[in-house]
Amino acid sequence: MKNVLVAGGAGFIGSHLCDALIAHGDRVFCLDDLSRGTLNNLGTVFANSNFFFERMDVGDARSLEAFMRDKNIDYVFHLAANSDIQASARNPQIEYSATLSTTWSILSAMRNVGVKKLFFASTSAVYGEQGDRASREDDALSPISYYGAAKASSEEAIRAFCHMNEINACVFRFANVIGSRLTHGVIFDFVNKLTADPTTLRVLGDGSQTKPYVHVSDLIRAIVALHNQANGMDVYNAGVETSSSVSFIAKEVRKEMGLPQARIEYGTEKIGWKGDIPRFRFDLSKIRATGWRAELTSDEAVRRTVKEVLRCKR
Amino acid sequence: MKNVLVAGGAGFIGSHLCDALIAHGDRVFCLDDLSRGTLNNLGTVFANSNFFFERMDVGDARSLEAFMRDKNIDYVFHLAANSDIQASARNPQIEYSATLSTTWSILSAMRNVGVKKLFFASTSAVYGEQGDRASREDDALSPISYYGAAKASSEEAIRAFCHMNEINACVFRFANVIGSRLTHGVIFDFVNKLTADPTTLRVLGDGSQTKPYVHVSDLIRAIVALHNQANGMDVYNAGVETSSSVSFIAKEVRKEMGLPQARIEYGTEKIGWKGDIPRFRFDLSKIRATGWRAELTSDEAVRRTVKEVLRCKR
Repeated sequence: MKNVLVAGGAGFIGSHLCDALIAHGDRVFCLDDLSRGTLNNLGTVFANSNFFFERMDVGDARSLEAFMRDKNIDYVFHLAANSDIQASARNPQIEYSATLSTTWSILSAMRNVGVKKLFFASTSAVYGEQGDRASREDDALSPISYYGAAKASSEEAIRAFCHMNEINACVFRFANVIGSRLTHGVIFDFVNKLTADPTTLRVLGDGSQTKPYVHVSDLIRAIVALHNQANGMDVYNAGVETSSSVSFIAKEVRKEMGLPQARIEYGTEKIGWKGDIPRFRFDLSKIRATGWRAELTSDEAVRRTVKEVLRCKR
Repeated sequence: MKNVLVAGGAGFIGSHLCDALIAHGDRVFCLDDLSRGTLNNLGTVFANSNFFFERMDVGDARSLEAFMRDKNIDYVFHLAANSDIQASARNPQIEYSATLSTTWSILSAMRNVGVKKLFFASTSAVYGEQGDRASREDDALSPISYYGAAKASSEEAIRAFCHMNEINACVFRFANVIGSRLTHGVIFDFVNKLTADPTTLRVLGDGSQTKPYVHVSDLIRAIVALHNQANGMDVYNAGVETSSSVSFIAKEVRKEMGLPQARIEYGTEKIGWKGDIPRFRFDLSKIRATGWRAELTSDEAVRRTVKEVLRCKR
């Protein structure tokens, strides 16, 4: 039985990962400062005798190091980060403290304690604007959002710590991840907007933004399958080949909420907000070669998520 | 007359830049925490009525922002960083606080005050190990040292702040920079070792490590010529085509110190220390196209620097 630490384990993706690691037979130590995550997300694992939760800001390197030493941690999953990109567009300091500082703190603690295995949740936003070209793992990074910059910077730090300390790190660059427990993003926003005003859905941007959405259940399967196989630092794009447009998502939300008469009003801008990437495509050949592929297409993931988000609100 | 801020202006390169900017006709506000820089380096500009010095840790975002506002800063040169790569190999936290945090602090202050122009001193270490291939500005970054990671991370942050705030940034990736006021690196080390023991010079690594060394006078000329021309974020490799081997440097130091009988003892490793890059080459076509080129070859820069360092010690 491995002792695994999940930093940011009470968040959207982190909590699904805790569920899966418990099912996988690990002893799971979940750390979260509960600034964005919630204990509600841990409802299903909390009673398990192999699950332990502690409220901690993993940016507090001293506490984290003591914790890792005390619990004899074998493996660290680092999913602690800001998840609200529009919030940090207004206040970049959020990314510095929540996304970038936590990475240096975790890496320093691993180095000092001697933990040699890491999973890191990165993002497609590290690529920046690549137009219609499908981004590959070995492309030069070119983030344009503070969020993308903090994640790219985290990757640079991980590479150096791996080299200097013989750490093996599995890094996933996530597409847009959706599913139950979602707290941000276009589906969540549309549901909230139509709840507040069932007559009209105002959309940021012209609706043509098209991105791949991967369902969290598919993603977690990939993490469980691949997290232990890295040799040095190993980076994977993790997503789906298919994409969904903002206008498709708006119509799905309207339909599932039973509001077919609601008007959808689009903006005129190609992007939803500054730092947004209007179109995005992943090259997935590397992760495909491992045998993994998403079961749900992007549109299927959107459909399922709309239902999950609505079920939760009822 | 422009009001320019030089962060890290009392350091090796920063102080030469202050000299040049004063000569260029700017009003120069030099900030330095004097942790690595010294007031001695500012001996020649201190008396100039357009030069102002304040001791400040530019990682202190609040003080920095107040300073920029108060002094009506038009342009920021960011040269504040750790400069002792071997020290941070032992303690990566040095890079986090001295090299990376300072960048976020400077960018945040610029954003809040509305300063739109930046020069950033980056490094060839952002490329990591590229073997005999000449590194180009648009290559994927792959740093293996904490120093390289902190500089690469700073570049990612600069890219996002430029995009989000219409800042223009000129970024130079420096080769090894040498010249008077040098405080670290192989020339400095060899002089100190032969001063302590004039009979034997012990060299880290087998002496075959070969890197391009650019003289600080050449580099400063390039910064003064190009710092104001960026449109968005503009990155230049700044160095020389030629290189010098560690064994050449050892022999030059021995000769200039008048110790021809001193024995040079080489190690057996290809690299001097973990995180070191044994061979390195820049592609300089981009900076060459601007009309700039170094006047001194790598070997000439080494020869002149050995003399300068020795003159200083006498």
